[in-house]
Amino acid sequence: MKKHNFSAGPCILPKEVMQKASEAVLELDGIGLSLIEISHRSKEFVSIMDKARSLALELLGLEGKGYQALFLHGGASLQFLMTAYNLLDKKAGYVNTGTWSQKAIKEARLLGDVVEVASSQEHNFNYIPKGYSVPSDLDYLHLTSNNTIFGTQIKEFPETNVPLVCDMSSDIFSRQLDFSKFDLIYAGAQKNMGPAGATLVVVKEDILGKVSRKIPSMLDYSIHVKQESMFNTPPVFAVYVSMLTMQWLKDLGGIAAIEEINERKANLIYSEIELNPVFSGFAAKEDRSLMNATFNITDDALKDTFDTMCKEAGISGINGHRSVGGYRASMYNALPMESVGVLVDIMSELEKKG
Amino acid sequence: MKKHNFSAGPCILPKEVMQKASEAVLELDGIGLSLIEISHRSKEFVSIMDKARSLALELLGLEGKGYQALFLHGGASLQFLMTAYNLLDKKAGYVNTGTWSQKAIKEARLLGDVVEVASSQEHNFNYIPKGYSVPSDLDYLHLTSNNTIFGTQIKEFPETNVPLVCDMSSDIFSRQLDFSKFDLIYAGAQKNMGPAGATLVVVKEDILGKVSRKIPSMLDYSIHVKQESMFNTPPVFAVYVSMLTMQWLKDLGGIAAIEEINERKANLIYSEIELNPVFSGFAAKEDRSLMNATFNITDDALKDTFDTMCKEAGISGINGHRSVGGYRASMYNALPMESVGVLVDIMSELEKKG
Ligand SMILES: Cc1ncc(COP(=O)(O)O)c(C=O)c1O
Ligand SMILES: Cc1ncc(COP(=O)(O)O)c(C=O)c1O
Ligand SMILES: [Mg+2]
Ligand SMILES: [Mg+2]
Ligand SMILES: [Mg+2]
Ligand SMILES: [Mg+2]
Repeated sequence: MKKHNFSAGPCILPKEVMQKASEAVLELDGIGLSLIEISHRSKEFVSIMDKARSLALELLGLEGKGYQALFLHGGASLQFLMTAYNLLDKKAGYVNTGTWSQKAIKEARLLGDVVEVASSQEHNFNYIPKGYSVPSDLDYLHLTSNNTIFGTQIKEFPETNVPLVCDMSSDIFSRQLDFSKFDLIYAGAQKNMGPAGATLVVVKEDILGKVSRKIPSMLDYSIHVKQESMFNTPPVFAVYVSMLTMQWLKDLGGIAAIEEINERKANLIYSEIELNPVFSGFAAKEDRSLMNATFNITDDALKDTFDTMCKEAGISGINGHRSVGGYRASMYNALPMESVGVLVDIMSELEKKG
Repeated sequence: MKKHNFSAGPCILPKEVMQKASEAVLELDGIGLSLIEISHRSKEFVSIMDKARSLALELLGLEGKGYQALFLHGGASLQFLMTAYNLLDKKAGYVNTGTWSQKAIKEARLLGDVVEVASSQEHNFNYIPKGYSVPSDLDYLHLTSNNTIFGTQIKEFPETNVPLVCDMSSDIFSRQLDFSKFDLIYAGAQKNMGPAGATLVVVKEDILGKVSRKIPSMLDYSIHVKQESMFNTPPVFAVYVSMLTMQWLKDLGGIAAIEEINERKANLIYSEIELNPVFSGFAAKEDRSLMNATFNITDDALKDTFDTMCKEAGISGINGHRSVGGYRASMYNALPMESVGVLVDIMSELEKKG
């Protein structure tokens, strides 16, 4: 049975990428050796890493603008710590838009003063705070562009002279933004970029080297920049598959092309959620995420029927996160429109049954 | 052409493991989804992680002895930092046996007093220091069981009441030891265990929780233990392939069985190095590594011929590390005896030519 994979991450990747990744595990590009058994210092892997780094900058429109792209270990969670280690000298501001922001705040507090510049916690993070003012004495302002769990997304970023740091784990490469407004962007690979195990960090070089503390080598962006993202053995497979996925996106027409598709997918599901009385959306309308649609069933008696229908249609990964409940349909770049169609059909069938 | 892969890491893995890994990237065990597109909280991946953790303890003979096995991000290099963060309260001792020990020392110095209990630096690390005394007031003593770059290996570990921490990155699962003598063992996956991107940490629970500093979440062993090695999204592919490789080793008869094979492979190459006047070994005889044989060519004029012969025979990855020069034949668990045979044949052919 064909599967429709709405997993929130790790999540669906393009079919042709998985095919090529599978082949590379047996043999990389006719070299007689597997991708995973060659030295990371081999010319083959060095060129994969270089290509991944340059594709990231190219897709974001950041080539030649003083940025460096790194593929690091540790997941986005290690970036909660690394951003603060490298950038928090006295005081940093955080906009608290959910679980991931909170975790970022927790790690930063170990290293300096943290002010919560704005928060939507009082409404269980179902909206994005707006119109807050940003103190001018912050070392940086930390944002979470897309809140994977709650299904909210920042549509307009604050105008400020304070350096902007942004966790884009769940919407990197999904929509057009002026990425040069950000001083540091990070994203765990396991949504729009590749398999779990690598993290993209895009950093403007001139914000580094300004804190006084000693930074452990593995946590020091400057060291990773200097070592061209090869300070230690990188997560080879995850970097390779990320490179393939970025190449797939480039061939498709880049972020502009995928954004259009992502908007269509999101429009399809959100209009169903709105029109269908059996379902109600969780997030405030103007802040709804293009990536993660969170919704509830209005009549609990229909839940089992809906779950069974989904299962029979090959739909997987749409249970909501425990902190929100209900459902979450994650529609990352590689999810075909067809899968959204199948889900929406079931939702409207359920209305007729209900 | 058949390849003989002597790479120092990432390195050769068992053929059947790579075959199964390749298939799982397309579809995991008939579930209709790829290994790399399912949630790490899915029952399928949770059972992979559980199996990896229990196989590690089983192979090391540490089940039911108060140890926990973790599969973490960051490579062994992050463990240089994490061991100190979690265990170094006042003073730690390090035995300096090469590049990797030195890097471990450097990170630990950020967190407390570090004494170099012994060192072989004055002879470019071509031997393992012995007979040194271990101060009794150390929080722990850090050892590097196998020095990948220099080709030396600790054969007898110091008897001491001080907790032992050991970097076993390049000889884990390769030889029988009383692993219960160690309080913390760590190893990057990319030699005997799997692809780059995961790191095994085996920690005796009762050594944790004794330092006074606050430990960042991602660096805190206690948090990883409590979260069953799933505090954040793990490096899914690397954990899966490590699990397969450990299962392969178990099916083969475990560490006792592979140790015998490893000894035969090492004997074959070291006796050739000794008997053949064209080659000389780098490491002191009694400290020679079963994993990495380091050697030089005595007549530089023969170097090009040797390199060409190796290339023509499909031998790859035998260049020595730049800090030693010469050659390094890494003979990890998955390297077949046949490959060592091919190399040794060339070495003795060269003698006839020379
Ligand atoms: C927005 C966001 N930030 C951070 C994380 C944490 O990522 P990781 O598990 O790679 O540490 C996630 C995970 O889903 C996320 O969605
Ligand atoms: C003994 C030893 N320790 C540590 C490391 C560093 O490992 P990683 O590159 O995973 O950080 C290596 C790498 O080869 C090694 O051989
Ligand atoms: Mg969130
Ligand atoms: Mg509705
Ligand atoms: Mg060494
Ligand atoms: Mg000789």
